[in-house]
This record gives sequence, C-alpha cells and structure tokens, in this order.
Amino acid sequence: MSKDFKPYYAVIFTSTQTDRIEGYSEMAEKMETLAKQQPGFIGLESARDGLGITVSYWENLDAIKNWKQESEHIIAQQKGREHWYNWYHVRICKVEREYEFLRK
Amino acid sequence: MSKDFKPYYAVIFTSTQTDRIEGYSEMAEKMETLAKQQPGFIGLESARDGLGITVSYWENLDAIKNWKQESEHIIAQQKGREHWYNWYHVRICKVEREYEFLRK
Repeated sequence: MSKDFKPYYAVIFTSTQTDRIEGYSEMAEKMETLAKQQPGFIGLESARDGLGITVSYWENLDAIKNWKQESEHIIAQQKGREHWYNWYHVRICKVEREYEFLRK
Repeated sequence: MSKDFKPYYAVIFTSTQTDRIEGYSEMAEKMETLAKQQPGFIGLESARDGLGITVSYWENLDAIKNWKQESEHIIAQQKGREHWYNWYHVRICKVEREYEFLRK
C-alpha cells in the first residue's frame, strides 16, 4: 500500500428491477444530484444491463450513515422497495488499496 | 454489524473500453469460468453500459493475490492493457457490513 493512501469507503449497491419503473429514472437522477451535495461524498459510478451496479464512494462511515438517513433519500428508498426493485444488495466496504491504468 | 457476519473482500473493477474489442468477450467468459474455480472465490457481478463495473468477491486477500497472479489471468490482463481498455481502476475493499432486500 502506498504510504500516503488514505482509506475511504465504498457502498456497492446491486439490484434487479421490476417492470414498474415509472418515475425511477427521474428519481435516480435526483438522488445522484443530491448525493453529490452530501458532506463526505467522493464519487459515484453506475452501470446497468439487466443487473444494476452502482458504487458510491465516501470519506467515512458517518457520511454513509447520514446519506442513508437523508429525508428525500429515505423516500426514494421506500419507493424503491414498493415499486422499482425486485431485489437489492447493499455492501459497505472499506477501500484498502487501489490502482489505475490509463492508456497513453 | 450482525454478530455472525464474517468480513470478506470485494474487488471493484471499473473500466472503459477501446473500439478494438476483438477477442474481449471470449476472454471475459473464460476469465469468469476460471475465477470461479479459484480457491476463496465467493461470487462475481458485472454490468456495462459504456462504463463497465465488475465486482468479484473473495474470502481473503491471499485469494485475490493468487487470482491476480494466475498465469492465464496475467495474459488476459496484458491483452486488456494492450487492446481492450482505455482506462481501468481497481479497488481492493473489505466488506464490513451488508444487507439485502427481496420482494415477497
């Protein structure tokens, strides 16, 4: 591990959707905008082809807890369980090491 | 955290591809089959729509290290850097907590 690497946190959110996704994409966009405004937010990456994977990155566990309890996000979570998701799995992870490749 | 939760590890691999993806899907399939045969492998989830996100889950760091050094996987990594990826980012993470929703 690089000496100056500072661990941070990742939330891995994997999901499958129902057929009733009305309102989902607007809400997803709204939540992405809102997440970016939260204290401790670092970044967000998302992809879906059948299975959806969204990974958000946070400075610490408190930032994740605060985001989970943010009032508009709570409403989004409820709607997700009521309508949009057949299944989801949330993993809270500590990023211990990382490396990158960039084509020159 | 649940008392009987046993931490495990996730490798978050995010990437963007080049236009030269000949041979990629065959290799990806081969690597998925091979990963599943490695000691300490737990699971793998993958999605791509522009950005690709593959998360593999492992019992411990040694299992991740061994998989990274597996001979056929090393060839795949080289081909990835030579041809298939414009960019990738690898994060080694300790899964500290998780929860799930399943529609009834």
